[in-house]
Amino acid sequence: MVNPEVIPAGHGVGLRLRRGEQIRLIDPHGGQSGDLLAFSHDGAERLSNGCTFDYGGKIYLSTGDVLWSDRSNPMLTIVADAVGRHDFLYSSCSIEMYRMQYGVTEYYANCYDNLCSAMRELGLEPAPLPTAFNFFMNVEIAADGRLIIAPPKSRAGDSMILRAEMDLAIALSACPASGCNGGGATGPLAFEVIR
Amino acid sequence: MVNPEVIPAGHGVGLRLRRGEQIRLIDPHGGQSGDLLAFSHDGAERLSNGCTFDYGGKIYLSTGDVLWSDRSNPMLTIVADAVGRHDFLYSSCSIEMYRMQYGVTEYYANCYDNLCSAMRELGLEPAPLPTAFNFFMNVEIAADGRLIIAPPKSRAGDSMILRAEMDLAIALSACPASGCNGGGATGPLAFEVIR
Repeated sequence: MVNPEVIPAGHGVGLRLRRGEQIRLIDPHGGQSGDLLAFSHDGAERLSNGCTFDYGGKIYLSTGDVLWSDRSNPMLTIVADAVGRHDFLYSSCSIEMYRMQYGVTEYYANCYDNLCSAMRELGLEPAPLPTAFNFFMNVEIAADGRLIIAPPKSRAGDSMILRAEMDLAIALSACPASGCNGGGATGPLAFEVIR
Repeated sequence: MVNPEVIPAGHGVGLRLRRGEQIRLIDPHGGQSGDLLAFSHDGAERLSNGCTFDYGGKIYLSTGDVLWSDRSNPMLTIVADAVGRHDFLYSSCSIEMYRMQYGVTEYYANCYDNLCSAMRELGLEPAPLPTAFNFFMNVEIAADGRLIIAPPKSRAGDSMILRAEMDLAIALSACPASGCNGGGATGPLAFEVIR
């Protein structure tokens, strides 16, 4: 692995991928989840969990599975995955969520704002934000449909690789929600682009 | 029930609800699913399955459950439900979906276009379309996350009632996908507004 770029705890980053390039998402210390949002290069197509669930016929994604756009085109294919459990159900954490669920009264870093900022730095208007792919986030679905957020299965150094199936704008956020990250302090993530 | 309005098979309709008003969604003949999309009156907030899953802590919604907006405000509360099983995972059927999954080559009526047209008739720009609440659509989630679209549990005359928690623009579509409606010919839906 050559020189992965760090996403500091609670921060986000934007980057562009050309079709065929790959991105490795790394959990340096383990137990940390992140959000990945993908738009087509011009923002005309956006990541869609609903199309991904429909065309893949499954709710849990891992190696070999495709993330689809809201206009039914493949955006990313998971080509390697050391973790094996990710979430694609939950909306990104937001300042409103921290107010309601954590009792926060001041500003609090959140994936919604991180992803919006990253997309705007790439020249794209993000709102209204679709559901991001919450990599390493571990959500269990009970038989009656109740959802339980469990600690990520990722251990220190674990990673997954996704291949771009079209030219993409990508936003990443190291999730600041302790509830999604095993309950303790939240940490950084890292990534590298494989060209 | 006073004079419910029919949504013909494969068609859509738009309407406005004021806060506190209720809408009854009716399956006149049974086994038919539909799509409901809700925007705030000015289009600034939009229905969000991701926020609904997060704040409700469940994937299956029924009486007492709230449908939330993408800015974390309650939009609709389910106040009665004779059916008890609805989907909030699948993106609306689209012309691209009919081409890929049904082999359609000509135009085919679809919920995506129906919902977009209905919102535009109300003066709102719908794209990019969020995931609609797929009422009466019956999706089973296997333990490994595989998704199975089963026939709706709705029988002739069954209905559900939702109460508006803010002033809303609503789009409805009687889903033309035979796969979501037990495999046979798709039928009409009906609704009435309770003021």
